[in-house]
Amino acid sequence: MKKTEVPAFDMVVFGATGDLAMRKLIPALFYRCRDGQLPDDGRIIGASRGDLSRDEFIAKVREASDRFIPRKFCEQEAWDRFEARLDYLKVDAKNGDDYAALANVLNEAPDRVRVIYLATGSSLFGPVCEHLKAHGVVTPQTRVVLEKPLGNDLESARAINDRVCSILDEAQVYRIDHYLGKEPVQNLMVLRFGNILFESLWHRKYIDHIQISVAETVGVEGRVEFYDNTGAMRDMVQSHLLQLLCIVAMEPPSSVDPDAVRDEKLKVLRSMRPIEGRDVDTMVVRGQYRKGVVGTEMVPGYRDEERVSSTSSTETFVAMKVMIDNWRWAQVPFYVRTGKRMPRRTSEILVQFKDVPHSLFDRDGRGLQPNQLVIRLQPKEGIRLRVSGKRLGTGMSVRPLELNLGENQRKKQHVPDAYERLLMDAISGNATLFVRRDEMEAAWRWIQPIIDHWEESDDDPYPYVSSTSGPNAAAALLAKDQRAWDEEAEE
Amino acid sequence: MKKTEVPAFDMVVFGATGDLAMRKLIPALFYRCRDGQLPDDGRIIGASRGDLSRDEFIAKVREASDRFIPRKFCEQEAWDRFEARLDYLKVDAKNGDDYAALANVLNEAPDRVRVIYLATGSSLFGPVCEHLKAHGVVTPQTRVVLEKPLGNDLESARAINDRVCSILDEAQVYRIDHYLGKEPVQNLMVLRFGNILFESLWHRKYIDHIQISVAETVGVEGRVEFYDNTGAMRDMVQSHLLQLLCIVAMEPPSSVDPDAVRDEKLKVLRSMRPIEGRDVDTMVVRGQYRKGVVGTEMVPGYRDEERVSSTSSTETFVAMKVMIDNWRWAQVPFYVRTGKRMPRRTSEILVQFKDVPHSLFDRDGRGLQPNQLVIRLQPKEGIRLRVSGKRLGTGMSVRPLELNLGENQRKKQHVPDAYERLLMDAISGNATLFVRRDEMEAAWRWIQPIIDHWEESDDDPYPYVSSTSGPNAAAALLAKDQRAWDEEAEE
Repeated sequence: MKKTEVPAFDMVVFGATGDLAMRKLIPALFYRCRDGQLPDDGRIIGASRGDLSRDEFIAKVREASDRFIPRKFCEQEAWDRFEARLDYLKVDAKNGDDYAALANVLNEAPDRVRVIYLATGSSLFGPVCEHLKAHGVVTPQTRVVLEKPLGNDLESARAINDRVCSILDEAQVYRIDHYLGKEPVQNLMVLRFGNILFESLWHRKYIDHIQISVAETVGVEGRVEFYDNTGAMRDMVQSHLLQLLCIVAMEPPSSVDPDAVRDEKLKVLRSMRPIEGRDVDTMVVRGQYRKGVVGTEMVPGYRDEERVSSTSSTETFVAMKVMIDNWRWAQVPFYVRTGKRMPRRTSEILVQFKDVPHSLFDRDGRGLQPNQLVIRLQPKEGIRLRVSGKRLGTGMSVRPLELNLGENQRKKQHVPDAYERLLMDAISGNATLFVRRDEMEAAWRWIQPIIDHWEESDDDPYPYVSSTSGPNAAAALLAKDQRAWDEEAEE
Repeated sequence: MKKTEVPAFDMVVFGATGDLAMRKLIPALFYRCRDGQLPDDGRIIGASRGDLSRDEFIAKVREASDRFIPRKFCEQEAWDRFEARLDYLKVDAKNGDDYAALANVLNEAPDRVRVIYLATGSSLFGPVCEHLKAHGVVTPQTRVVLEKPLGNDLESARAINDRVCSILDEAQVYRIDHYLGKEPVQNLMVLRFGNILFESLWHRKYIDHIQISVAETVGVEGRVEFYDNTGAMRDMVQSHLLQLLCIVAMEPPSSVDPDAVRDEKLKVLRSMRPIEGRDVDTMVVRGQYRKGVVGTEMVPGYRDEERVSSTSSTETFVAMKVMIDNWRWAQVPFYVRTGKRMPRRTSEILVQFKDVPHSLFDRDGRGLQPNQLVIRLQPKEGIRLRVSGKRLGTGMSVRPLELNLGENQRKKQHVPDAYERLLMDAISGNATLFVRRDEMEAAWRWIQPIIDHWEESDDDPYPYVSSTSGPNAAAALLAKDQRAWDEEAEE
């Protein structure tokens, strides 16, 4: 990205003293400032209910940056330049009077791009937008970034979108899903559409199936009230996993312009075969963790966590088989899985190619492995292609070969985080990697019959022991198709 | 290759004191012996006109091995084991009486596999076989390895084959082309037929064209009489280059059995569009080197070399465009080129894939590079795949990425030479990588109209300055197709 593409801007972060702001947003802005990508003009204004002075806010920011920015990247000069941009305003999101001061500060530079980042619960999105509007803060150059999850079901998501979009044009609304900003997800798009090698094979003729897995080792960890009303389907599948699925499955867009890409993703969401009624029980597996041993420590089951009901049926694990009804993907299952208290923290997309139709080289009895493309988002970002090559020597023995399609990341180099990319995109007005309203609602629409079925059901989620790969039913989901989850050892 | 597959054998090398034997065959046998791949029983018997004792022969072998086997691989114990196998017999190939002693020695072990390696001119192949037959040396377990070139044109090749095959079964005749034994050529077969990724794209739909280049830096260098009657077309194209072309272009065989593979190669040779009459002038470029500077030294032109006529029209360079008339390769040109006194010694096959049909990522004006697969035989063996990936960072910039599909060769490790593989194959009775009679004659048949046209023509080869990439006409051959030779800098 060239410097000239970044306009002068002011950014307001609602929820500025919260975890997301301190852990992700502030460091992201610091790194971009450090690299000289932020224009000289422009402030970063923290806003929250807390009655803090600028200095007190900066003290908090410093404290957080000590934890989240390695010292070697935090040169004094770079930090000073960054700190000079920071300001703080007490704004209770629900209190209209608090917005007057914000309006005053922003209107010192009325023509600048304004990025309002709402790192708050989605119930505040409507009220904040209304107050901003009322105080004349919403200019044509204003963009509002909304953190996920937006709503709790199709109806509430629609209601929030209705309210926000009554004030802002859709082109001003930046619904963030940080998975889309991750380096390997971007690289996957370049690899697919930049190489005749990959896109030509990206098809039911050559691909056996696709797996998308996001596994966390943590349990509910302090987010109990939120999580117990949400669960893995709403928290992870509706957003991150379906977004990844769209990037993998979409047709080549005509350009990387926001609507060209998002139109293609939307087409995928609309092509996903609905799972409704009793089909939910065969195509979707939900699980809930029980106690178990993590490392050397005994951890409680989900229902034993503080503030969780002993009869809660909130799922902490989902596995499902998704079919996409179009020409490219007919009969190619997408196996999607996410869970808490898994044995390893990994996020990856596995593209499993078909076996060669006829093997010349399996005389040693082990047979050839089919090609695989593994897009890993966590813990170590990267894309690897697995092929079979010849083992050096006078025989004709086959060996597996793993090709690194990512850039070798030197440890001394700072690797930009997803939020860095996405914040720069929001500032520059590039919405390609943000979720459009129709996409988001299509994802909710597809999820809705599944969560409805669960709510109507008397069944509980399948239990699974903490630090295992989920309930047996998840393995059985693939086993009945003669397939298995990729359970690769962590690097 | 497992040890048990190698039977007890005696090997006789005709031309045992010659360059090929000393430089390639003896070291190859030594390395296989050193690795424990040769069974305990079995002798290696040098044969030539020279009146040498065993000790004198061994002294010559030692002297040569000092030059051609790095000391670190030549442990005393391994060498002693090897030397114990060596023997020598004076055999004038044309003198029937000399074969009696050979017969006596071999008949000490009548049931052993016998490999008779004829590292001699092809005019001796018939006489040697006849004498071997007359002295009862040819058993059902006898295999005769014939060095290229076999004949000087279709007629002489047929005559030699007729004579040899009147004595030996075709299955006993091992026509060697050591290019087929090279590691990257083997690996290319594994990659093509062991990965759905490659074979699925190995097609006119995805491949723009293919280049096969074998460039030498040396001039005629002492082989004047042979070379002036041969030229690059017979010496290199008829054998090495067309063999490489067959491996690249063949359909997947049903197995790696000798006839399955060679049937497919033969089909390629028979599908090559003939170049005859005036087409020769537009599809084939021949060149002859003139004086020039190699390094800091002025070197003479071909016609100024000692013992070369000042009017010789022998070509030292050939470039041509070959079309293969079948479904897979229709409209995909194979550009083939070989020459002496080129700027760099390289042998490589370049598979140039097509551009992506529509580029999303060429906004920086440089555009995407099409995918390439480069199979390098010399100077550094290896296979590399060139793709486009994303450059690490917040932008969407594309970078070229080169993937190594060969095994990383450690310097401390001995990398088996083509002759090692091929000798072991001959001993084991695996003829897959040897040239069958019909293949060889098909190659001559295809070449013949071109050399006939040249012989009938009054034109001379195009001159080119030593240490340049051949005559301009060779560049023009591709330029009129809007293409260019791959002139990559040496690694």
